[in-house]
Parts: sequence; C-alpha cells; structure tokens
Amino acid sequence: MEPLWHLRRMLWLELRRQGPDTLTRQLYRQLVDKILGGELPGGTRLPSSRELAAEHRIARNIVVAVFEQLLAEGYLEARAGSGTYVAQLRRPRHAPVPSAPAAEATPPPEPHRGGAVSFICGSPDVGLFPRARWLSCLRQVGFFRDAAMWDYAPPTGSPALRAEIAAHLRRTKGIDCTPGQIVVTAGTTAALTFVAHLLKHRRPGALVEDPVVGFVPALLAEAGHTIAPVPADASGLVVEQLPAKPRAGMVFVSPAHQFPLGATLPIPRRLALVDYARRHRLLIVEDDYDSEFRHEGAPVDSLCRLAPERVLHLGTFSKCLAPALRLGYVVLPAALVPAAVETAETLHLGVSRYTQEAMARFIGQGHLGRHIARMQRLYRRRMLRLRSALHARFGDAVTISGHSTGLHLVATFREVRFDSATRARLAAHGVAADTVDDFALGRPRHPGALALGYGHLAPPEIDEGARRLAAAIGRS
Amino acid sequence: MEPLWHLRRMLWLELRRQGPDTLTRQLYRQLVDKILGGELPGGTRLPSSRELAAEHRIARNIVVAVFEQLLAEGYLEARAGSGTYVAQLRRPRHAPVPSAPAAEATPPPEPHRGGAVSFICGSPDVGLFPRARWLSCLRQVGFFRDAAMWDYAPPTGSPALRAEIAAHLRRTKGIDCTPGQIVVTAGTTAALTFVAHLLKHRRPGALVEDPVVGFVPALLAEAGHTIAPVPADASGLVVEQLPAKPRAGMVFVSPAHQFPLGATLPIPRRLALVDYARRHRLLIVEDDYDSEFRHEGAPVDSLCRLAPERVLHLGTFSKCLAPALRLGYVVLPAALVPAAVETAETLHLGVSRYTQEAMARFIGQGHLGRHIARMQRLYRRRMLRLRSALHARFGDAVTISGHSTGLHLVATFREVRFDSATRARLAAHGVAADTVDDFALGRPRHPGALALGYGHLAPPEIDEGARRLAAAIGRS
Repeated sequence: MEPLWHLRRMLWLELRRQGPDTLTRQLYRQLVDKILGGELPGGTRLPSSRELAAEHRIARNIVVAVFEQLLAEGYLEARAGSGTYVAQLRRPRHAPVPSAPAAEATPPPEPHRGGAVSFICGSPDVGLFPRARWLSCLRQVGFFRDAAMWDYAPPTGSPALRAEIAAHLRRTKGIDCTPGQIVVTAGTTAALTFVAHLLKHRRPGALVEDPVVGFVPALLAEAGHTIAPVPADASGLVVEQLPAKPRAGMVFVSPAHQFPLGATLPIPRRLALVDYARRHRLLIVEDDYDSEFRHEGAPVDSLCRLAPERVLHLGTFSKCLAPALRLGYVVLPAALVPAAVETAETLHLGVSRYTQEAMARFIGQGHLGRHIARMQRLYRRRMLRLRSALHARFGDAVTISGHSTGLHLVATFREVRFDSATRARLAAHGVAADTVDDFALGRPRHPGALALGYGHLAPPEIDEGARRLAAAIGRS
Repeated sequence: MEPLWHLRRMLWLELRRQGPDTLTRQLYRQLVDKILGGELPGGTRLPSSRELAAEHRIARNIVVAVFEQLLAEGYLEARAGSGTYVAQLRRPRHAPVPSAPAAEATPPPEPHRGGAVSFICGSPDVGLFPRARWLSCLRQVGFFRDAAMWDYAPPTGSPALRAEIAAHLRRTKGIDCTPGQIVVTAGTTAALTFVAHLLKHRRPGALVEDPVVGFVPALLAEAGHTIAPVPADASGLVVEQLPAKPRAGMVFVSPAHQFPLGATLPIPRRLALVDYARRHRLLIVEDDYDSEFRHEGAPVDSLCRLAPERVLHLGTFSKCLAPALRLGYVVLPAALVPAAVETAETLHLGVSRYTQEAMARFIGQGHLGRHIARMQRLYRRRMLRLRSALHARFGDAVTISGHSTGLHLVATFREVRFDSATRARLAAHGVAADTVDDFALGRPRHPGALALGYGHLAPPEIDEGARRLAAAIGRS
C-alpha cells in the first residue's frame, strides 16, 4: 500500500479548501507533480475514485474528473477490472499527433480480461478518427480573419458546409439537392427533434417502424406527436401493414439499414411506401445513419431519389466520422424550405460555427471521402470476422442477418430466448449486448435475436466476444 | 468593367456541370488561381453574388459560400456598401495566428460609410476572441490518447468541464454548487429548451417577465407551456404584479440585467420573488446571460444564493467568450438532479465532447478569467463612449438606463415614438436598432426607447451610430 500512502500524505498535506485554486486544480496539479517528480513511479496503483473521495471528503465527481483528465493525457492507465495505475512515461508529455494510422496498422488492444466485451450498437471506431487532419482543418478556421466564424451561425447552417454536404450527397448517396435544401443539425437526434417540430405544425402524429431505436419515439412524443408502430420484418418496414386511415403526418423509416433488424428495404416496398405516402399526403422521414458502409450487394439509393417532394432525409457524421463532432443534417423537399427556415429560427438551431467551417474544409479537401473508404474496408473485415467467429462457435444454431450494411448485424440463436436468466448469464460471462426485442415498440417478435455492434471492436475483441457468447448461451 | 469581363470569361470557359468536381470547388479553385496568378489583381471589383449566380445560372448559395470562404481566407475584401474586391495580398496566405491583442491594441475599423451601423443586441466583440489560446486548448484535446474524446459525450456533459464550471461559478458568481448539479448545454437556448422539458412533466405553464427576448416565449410554448406575461419596469420584474393564483410551474426572470430594460433586480424584489415562489411552489428560472460584465455598483449575487433549492440558473459562454462555441449550462437544485439526468438522456443533450474538453482546459488554465477581465474594461469604455456620444447629440432629450451591466443599454428619447415612420428614417440613415417595445409580450409600454447593443462596436462606429441616430430622429 506504499503508493496509496504516498497519495494520502500528498493530498492530506496540500489540499486546501479555501484559496484561489479549486479542489480539481489542486488534485490535478499535485498528482501531475508527483508523477513527473517520480514520487508516484510508473505502475503505482491508485485508490479508486470512490475511496479517494471518501478518504478526503471531497465530491467523487472531482476525483473522477481529475482521473479522466490524467487518463486522457496519458499520466494514468486504466487496466480493465484491476484499477488505475500511473503510466510508464516513456514518451514526452506532448507526443506529436500521429496522422491517422492505416486500418491495418491499428495495434489490436489485448482482449479484455475482467472488463466486459460490449456489442452495444452505435459507436464507430473513434480510435481511428483522423485527429491530425481534423485539427488542421480547425487550425485553418482559426486562421480566419473573418470574426464571424466566432459569432452565431445562421440557423440553417454555414453556407460553406451546406454546399459541401450537397456535393458530398451527390457523390455518395446519389441525392440531388441544392445547399438551400440542407439544414445542419447537432447530429441525428437534433435533426429528428427539428423535423418533429417542423411537421407537428403541419399535421401531428407519426407512423414509426417497429422495432426502432428508443430515442425516436421518445423525441417524437416529447415534441407532441402520437406514435403508431408499424411492424418491420427481415426485409424492413412491412408496408402492407401501414394503417388504411393513418392519423399521422409522417412515416419514420430507416430503409438503407433498418435499425435494429438490419434489413435494406427492397424496391417493391419502397415504391409501395412512396405510393402510400402520396395517397395519404404523408411525409417520409428517412433515417440514413450508416449507409456509407455497404458491405454486400449494390449501393442503394436514398428514398429521396424516388420521391424528392416528400422525403426528409436525415444523415449524420457520427457514424461515418465521429460522434463528438455533433454534426448531422436534414435534406428537405424544396417546398418545405421556407417553413424549415422558420422552425430552425424558432428552435435556435445554430450549430457551432467554427466546427461547421472546419467540417466544410474536411469534406472539401477530400479527408471525409478518404476516411470513409478506409473505414469501409475495415468494417467489412470486422463484419466477416464476427460472422465467421459466430459460425465457428454456434454452427447452424445461429442465423446471421442484417450484415449487408453498417456497423452491426443481427444474430438469431436457435432455441434461445433472451429472458432475465439468459441476460444474467451474458453479464456473468462479461459480454454486453442489446436484444432485438429491447427495441420493440409493440409485441416483441424476436426472442432469440441479438443486435451485435462490431464497428468499434478490434478483431481479438470480436473473437473473445463470440467465445463469451458461446459460454453464456451454453455452446462451449 | 474590365475585371468583370475577366471573371465572366474565366467561369464561362471553365465551369463544368458534369465531372467529379462540384460547382463550389470549381468556382473556389478558379477564383483562387486567378487571384494568385495575378489575372485578378488586387483591387479588382467582383460582381455581386446575385449577378454572378444569374450570369452563370448557378445557385446563389454556391456563389455566396465561395465568396464567404475567400473573404474568410483574405483573398477578397468586402467594402461596406460598395461590394467585394480582390485583396492586396501582401502577407503570406496563412499568417501566423496573433495572440489575442490587448483591448487597447484593437485597430479601430474605419466607420461604415454606406453600410448600416448595427446596435442590434446580443453579440460580444468576437474580433477579440482569443483564437490562439482556444486553438491551443483544442490541440491539447487533439493530443488525447483517450479515443472517448471523439465519442458521444455524457448527456449531462463532460465531468472535467462540469468541475471547471462549478469552480468558475464559485469564483465569479458566488454560486456554491457541485459539478453534479451542472448540466452542459449548447448555449442558453438549448438550456431553456432543456429546462422547459424538465419542468413541463412537473407542472406546465410559465410566468415570464415582459418585455423579454423573443426566443423565451417561443421555446417555452414549443415545449408545451402556456405563457403568462408579468410586467417588468425600470427595476426589473414587478413582483407585486405576479398573479395571486399562478397556473404555472416556473417564473422566468433575468435579475442580473433584465433584457431588454437592463435593470438589476433590487434585493427587496428578489426576496419577495423568492417568497412568492416558495408560497406557490414555483421554480425560478434565472437567465444570467451577461452578468460577468458589471460596470457600475457592487457585483450582484445570483438568485441561487437566496434560494438554492428552487432556482435553475442559466449561464452561457456566448456573451463572455464567443457564440460559436455553443456552450452554456444550467445549475440545478440538488433535488432536481435525478429528473434532470433523465431529461438530458431523453433529449440526447450530449454536446460536442472535444469542445467541452477544450473549454475545461480553457477555464482551468485561466484563459477565461483573463479574457473576461480584459473585455470587462473594454466594454465599460464602450458603454461610457456611447453614453457620452448620446448625451452630446441629444442633451437632456435622451435618458440612459440599464447600463450598469453587460453589452447593451436603453436610450429613451423624449417626445419620440418609434413608429413605422421613425423606423424608416433610421433605416434611411443607415442605423439598425431594436426598440424596447419590439420585445413586448403584452401592451407596449416604452414608445420612445431603443435597446442599443454596443459590445461589438468599436469607438468610431459608436460615434458614427450616435450621429446617425441624431440625424434620423432629427437632432442634427
């Protein structure tokens, strides 16, 4: 307990509750000094934030914040399941930013031991975020002599970014729109909130594919819409089951890669959906969260191509680049633009101006295209790796679907029901995953199906995860 | 029209509608080439974006975007009222970032000629935004080896930033709260939307001081609250006029610097307001948008000090630093924290993670405190400058009020009513300003009063603005 004693004495001696410096700063500085000064040598195990906070009667939040900062800066290392350690500081404190490594070059992290392998969907591999290129774009914006970069952004977004997004959509999604039809938002959730408010003044009520990611009904309801679920199956939204007399102004659908089922809506259903929407004067809200990563079959066009006059297309940079940017967009039918501008002004939608300008450069200079191409190859390999790992463990007792696109697939296990007992076994074996039925609005229909996100997992983690699934479900 | 001919021919020769490159990129590259190549020499006047777009049958949006980018990068110069010109490129394309100049050192821009002088409230002097320091904080975040910086942020905000905000509030506003009571939002508007949704599930309906900035009733109504205006006078909210039987769950008030009237709510009214809120079990939403800049009298405490259990304190970095960061926060009564976390998760409040981490560093390294101190001196000088300029022009025909704090003051002109005719004269004389009555919810009560924002105006612009006001209102 020598290091712990070190730490106690250090804080006990120097922690001041009065004076100019906050506890956070004091704790941060003192830990840094002791680490750089060698009093806390590499490998020293620190007490948990809980122990430390209790020990010194300070808010645990403060300790957590300081630990996170020191971990982030590389002073400390978290070892899964065994606590926080002082890092062996070989490199200088500020190593130069490495340019984003090629996928091949990623050092595969050693598989978790105590820590859980998480198949929870939704995150790309942020470890491969091209930090150097993004920072260079931020720097370019920083050089702007135009002070407006630091002022409020136009409510519908930066003209430069909207122009680049329009060009990007033409290149990658075959969407033909003007920058004026694009509204920049803080990701898909903000885009959906915006659309919900825009459309509720027109006609409230939403038909929503079921299953669906939880924030969709939540945000639509929060904005005042009633939700009517419409079942989705292995091919996506079951168009025949749309109500004959819809009490709604919109249909929410994810045709490129239904979440969570993973289906790509086939053309006959797309045509039927558009026809239905036209007959009932509905607008279609198309959530296109990860179609950039198409692993099998021909690329699929956006619904915008079929019905530009009634599709609101939601896109995001969270999956194809990084969630931390909080950047997404809506492509609107031209006729909705005036109302959309009004709603954007009412909601004060303005998104961080300099982030928008940096993204405009990031796209314009070709970095986004190159990053997507690199990640596409990487994610495809990971999808294949997970598929074969599951087949190796479960043979024909598992059926894989929804793997043609994106960052997750669906694994349906024969003669398995994911009830509380099964879930307890998953947890006990250190593997985390959502079931498809976790996303059910109405009756759960997929008792044996897991939605497995693999985009953020390195190959060894994927193998280890499959091993633990097998152990938990009783296949090894 | 020689230069115009240049430009036409260039685009006419080279603009391709097919091919890999967007019109934006083509227009951008061709203009840059011609400028650097000397075919468009410094001083060349460009046609307006409207002419150019019409001339070449491309969306005006595209031309605007390209012009803005070239202006921003310094290839072009806008001369107020006379159009866009090719810059005389003396310095290298990427000049090193100057560290933020001392207020004294600001080069006073030559007063506008054709362009309007705008007294519209709401913007700080973004020209003095400490870009170099902000970029260095962004760079520090960029060096993070913790990939989580690029992933989704916790819905209530980064622990590091919440800790720094809590410390900052203790130092600057005398607010004593834990990081756990703080929720980080994308500015005040997002904070208000968050609060509106948080409180509507408790008890809908809002008492709102009148006059008030327009987004307040708009966002509260959008979230499903009914609005009951309560008059504010030269001392702020008229507490005696609060309804005997309020059908509401909250009172919205800006006690530090009532917007637009500029009053600082006196202690007796504060005590009465808190007493009223306690009797009727109301929560108080305190909008504290610019109290960092106190020009006269002692600093005023937040209402949190009087009633920590029922005040929700809204703060923002838009006024004291820069709107482009889209960073604000809510300080919550401890009892509301669990519900707030739930609401933050439902609304998917997560704000850009790396921006939050950069701000945590910006505060922790003392940059924010230094910037506020510098701007405080600057804004005070500008307030005094505007006050004396108005007195010089109008003598005792003008009454100045609401100038003790912040970035705007109220000028009431004797025997003047700002009707459509007066407004037309203001526009004709090239001066823009909101009237106080523009912000009235109920009956307009201040026919002769203007809300004059001065924070963003250099001294010569302030003088010129006063001159034009005098000319428009008929005092010179």
